[in-house]
Amino acid sequence: MTRLVAIDWGTSSLRGALLDASGKVLEERNDARGILTVPEGGFPAVFDKLFGDWMRLEGARCLISGMAGSKQGWVEAPYCACPAGRVEVGRKIIDIDAVAGARIAIVPGLSDEHAGVPDVMRGEEVQIFGAMELTGLSEGVFVLPGTHNKWASVKKGRVAGFRTYMTGEFYALLSQHSILARTLDASAPLDEAAFLEGVTRSENGHGLLHNAFGTRTLALFERMPKEELSSYLSGLLIGEELRTQALQASGEVILIGSSNLTERYTLALRATGVATRTLGAEATWAGLHALSGFLDSDRTPA
Amino acid sequence: MTRLVAIDWGTSSLRGALLDASGKVLEERNDARGILTVPEGGFPAVFDKLFGDWMRLEGARCLISGMAGSKQGWVEAPYCACPAGRVEVGRKIIDIDAVAGARIAIVPGLSDEHAGVPDVMRGEEVQIFGAMELTGLSEGVFVLPGTHNKWASVKKGRVAGFRTYMTGEFYALLSQHSILARTLDASAPLDEAAFLEGVTRSENGHGLLHNAFGTRTLALFERMPKEELSSYLSGLLIGEELRTQALQASGEVILIGSSNLTERYTLALRATGVATRTLGAEATWAGLHALSGFLDSDRTPA
Repeated sequence: MTRLVAIDWGTSSLRGALLDASGKVLEERNDARGILTVPEGGFPAVFDKLFGDWMRLEGARCLISGMAGSKQGWVEAPYCACPAGRVEVGRKIIDIDAVAGARIAIVPGLSDEHAGVPDVMRGEEVQIFGAMELTGLSEGVFVLPGTHNKWASVKKGRVAGFRTYMTGEFYALLSQHSILARTLDASAPLDEAAFLEGVTRSENGHGLLHNAFGTRTLALFERMPKEELSSYLSGLLIGEELRTQALQASGEVILIGSSNLTERYTLALRATGVATRTLGAEATWAGLHALSGFLDSDRTPA
Repeated sequence: MTRLVAIDWGTSSLRGALLDASGKVLEERNDARGILTVPEGGFPAVFDKLFGDWMRLEGARCLISGMAGSKQGWVEAPYCACPAGRVEVGRKIIDIDAVAGARIAIVPGLSDEHAGVPDVMRGEEVQIFGAMELTGLSEGVFVLPGTHNKWASVKKGRVAGFRTYMTGEFYALLSQHSILARTLDASAPLDEAAFLEGVTRSENGHGLLHNAFGTRTLALFERMPKEELSSYLSGLLIGEELRTQALQASGEVILIGSSNLTERYTLALRATGVATRTLGAEATWAGLHALSGFLDSDRTPA
């Protein structure tokens, strides 16, 4: 294989990269055609439009992670149960025969279970494997902020278990659809002091359902400037997440995600004395490159 | 005064009752013209349309509680700070001169403050005063479920303090606008077992941001029937509220609200060994009747 077309195909957007045999990124592409925008049966055409030129390079193969492997995606790649590392996931990679002459495969997500309630991730497992490659770590707490944040515990190079927090989606709901939306400016830049005030407030024991209302009353009584309210609410939510997540970081926490989110987690974790290291899209490419080694090995038939 | 036109004028709807001198309800009216539907300067016309016939009865007077007294309402009646009882609130009732010949007055809401963050209620204070009249209690924990739930501590006949929980609004946001909306049937009737499963789950220490996601995965893995998911989510939210509210009920908790909500709080509280007593709209009418005694007494000028 001389070229790997690495794709993280999510719900509302996708990212692709063309990698050489060593995993070096030659080119990157982003697109808004997340799986929810693709019509029934439309994946081969969208794929060809976006990545056809890369796939026609000699020896090119493609590996896709993310929601494209879900029931609502292109081809369902059943979840791999935790604990799971590169080997367990690599063996469950699924080939797609939908595009003539193109060698495309899809990575399964991970599942975990807590007292009878399942938990799932799709795409984040690849970022975690990539982060392990890039940092050399095989133990630790890996946090992936996003719409549905993941807190994963890594032991001996495998994801031992994880939990999802809907923090990003709660922020979007509250800032766009709730009574708070009337006074809050969701486009205001991060105000660190207001953010940390929210983090501190989240620790008062009265919970998010109560503390969120304070974002309304602080505006009503003009106790906080309008442009600081979104940072305060973000601090309340991320503080609540930190307060209720159960993983203990012995060393630093590895944060993987976009800088506007990892910046907030860095601030909030630092305030509690926890050091962080941050990775971005490079973790996805390193993870897909690492898993591409399984494309030619024995795999469980789909 | 031979007739009292008692009105609870809220954000999205209103309720009115015609009371005789003893406080007996002669007639009730509900309408969807909450304050957000009333155009600028439109309150006198809407009021006359809805209650003009009652106001033309001999000696009729009107007392209004709720969001009609807010900045966005008819006339702003400034908040009365806790601790506050009937006397403190009664003295701050504001007369409205907007309708010629009609004697209309408006009840202020209550404010409280916790570590620099204000809290507010408008309308619930009247329900609490009414509940005290109807039950004969002057001490206890009074809970008013709704979009923004109130937990009030009553001591010596006055509201000593209170906290707001956005539980009702969170339920609406999650069941209508979040990823959970895709699998959940918000119109399904209450399933007690699923509701109590949610209440129990909320006590696992992992918080609402994590537990809410379980509503998604239980559906995804077909572990819970679709028609039970909304009850489960409701249980998660109400359980979270009970877990984080700080008031200790020495005896029974007084619940005031619509039966579909008070039923859920009764179930959840009973599961933790707390007895409840429930009141509905009659608390509003009793409260406005009790406050009408202040209409002819000395009051702070508006």
